[in-house]
Amino acid sequence: MTSRIVAERQVIPSASLPPVTGRTRIYGILADPIYHVKTPEVMNALFKTHGIDGVLVPFHVKPDGLTALVDGLRRMENFGGFIATVPHKTDMLALCDEITDAARHIGAVNCVRREPDGRMVGAMLDGIGFVEALRAAGVDPHGMSVYLAGAGGASSAIAFALADAGVRHITIANRTSERAKALTDRLQSAYPALTVATDAADLEDHDLVVNGTSLGMRLEDEPPLDLERLHRAQLVADAIMEPAMTPLLAAAEAKGCRIFKGRPMLESQIVLMAQHMGALA
Amino acid sequence: MTSRIVAERQVIPSASLPPVTGRTRIYGILADPIYHVKTPEVMNALFKTHGIDGVLVPFHVKPDGLTALVDGLRRMENFGGFIATVPHKTDMLALCDEITDAARHIGAVNCVRREPDGRMVGAMLDGIGFVEALRAAGVDPHGMSVYLAGAGGASSAIAFALADAGVRHITIANRTSERAKALTDRLQSAYPALTVATDAADLEDHDLVVNGTSLGMRLEDEPPLDLERLHRAQLVADAIMEPAMTPLLAAAEAKGCRIFKGRPMLESQIVLMAQHMGALA
Repeated sequence: MTSRIVAERQVIPSASLPPVTGRTRIYGILADPIYHVKTPEVMNALFKTHGIDGVLVPFHVKPDGLTALVDGLRRMENFGGFIATVPHKTDMLALCDEITDAARHIGAVNCVRREPDGRMVGAMLDGIGFVEALRAAGVDPHGMSVYLAGAGGASSAIAFALADAGVRHITIANRTSERAKALTDRLQSAYPALTVATDAADLEDHDLVVNGTSLGMRLEDEPPLDLERLHRAQLVADAIMEPAMTPLLAAAEAKGCRIFKGRPMLESQIVLMAQHMGALA
Repeated sequence: MTSRIVAERQVIPSASLPPVTGRTRIYGILADPIYHVKTPEVMNALFKTHGIDGVLVPFHVKPDGLTALVDGLRRMENFGGFIATVPHKTDMLALCDEITDAARHIGAVNCVRREPDGRMVGAMLDGIGFVEALRAAGVDPHGMSVYLAGAGGASSAIAFALADAGVRHITIANRTSERAKALTDRLQSAYPALTVATDAADLEDHDLVVNGTSLGMRLEDEPPLDLERLHRAQLVADAIMEPAMTPLLAAAEAKGCRIFKGRPMLESQIVLMAQHMGALA
């Protein structure tokens, strides 16, 4: 799987798309807000490369409209499935008719396949995409100590995928310490050999620093962690897609850290998503 | 309006589309079956010509799923509206929150604008598009005697638009004569100077022969009218988009009739639809 994904990461969003016809299969991305999503460009470029007659379009839906929209999409016969992103990943868990073990474990869904009978099958591919992007860049997280800001859906997915990839320690730093504790408890239970913590004070002691919050999407956001304490021996990754260079990554780069942008993580999981939605074999 | 529409008819479906992004506005066409619809190519070419960041995609929905899908689309914040076609035009009447006078008159909706608050506003533009296509081809239906096969949504729209354009007589031929009678009663009531009939026997006495049924979409369909009785002095039009050359049009051409395909009628109303959905000023 890894070599396939590395190859697919070369896909560059195209300047043009093939025409949409009555036979074109439809896929979506559900988000709120929607303007910042990059998945349509990346997925449609992948479809074009593979000669797939499909198009992925943005569906802007607020949390209180999610159930009605998903119920409507069950009845759309040429709809293949959708990607769910902020703030819908957790809510989708209960709206799916079936979920993968990874989605149940992590407690969130980010990709849904619509079966021909309208049933919705949810998966969680965020974390796998994150780890595959690190590996594609030549970084094996095995044995590393990880500092992860955030305890929401994206952070949970990244934490479980990193645990699965063999990191030795994970610190979860979250504004609500109860959520951080709940996540470390679940991690510890699933991976007894892993050590965990929720103390944000020891940022400098970690090999890999990851932002799994949405802080950095908007100009006025506070930093997701204490930028002053980063140092050049650390790897710093941000799960945010836009802006590509977040204030966190800019600060880390200025300190001499090796940085990892959100976009390659999206590209790493785009093939996994196309496969889950049945667009790609 | 006429000159504008004539100009827009020059739009040729493009070999490529601009990329879909998170900021692209979404429009749909709802139909069952869906494979034959040509609106995505034509509308997306229009959007491209005008530099509109929008894409129209096919939504395949069966009659028993229509209400759920429309309710879902009410909650899709970046959805501008949709075109409704067979078999949904009549059902959409009751599903809209507001309809235009023309839609109420004809008893069908073929284009729906989604307001920012989720309200759906239905219009009926089929008939106007049909008459504009005739005019764009240099044919003024004023004073003509018309034979129209079918009494469904498309036929009603064409009949009312032809009556509005000043034809002197309309014969409605329908397998269910009650539906034909109901339509001629409504026409007669709205246009007292018009003469109407429901007798399919006098096909040869009409100037303009129109197929408003779906017969001819499938190879195994029976003809919508008695092909043997067409003669070269008649104009013959088919509202079916695909195949472009229906058995009716092929027979009419073989008899020396001037024929009018369905596609230009679609192109004639595409600007009206883009305007109703708010995509075009």
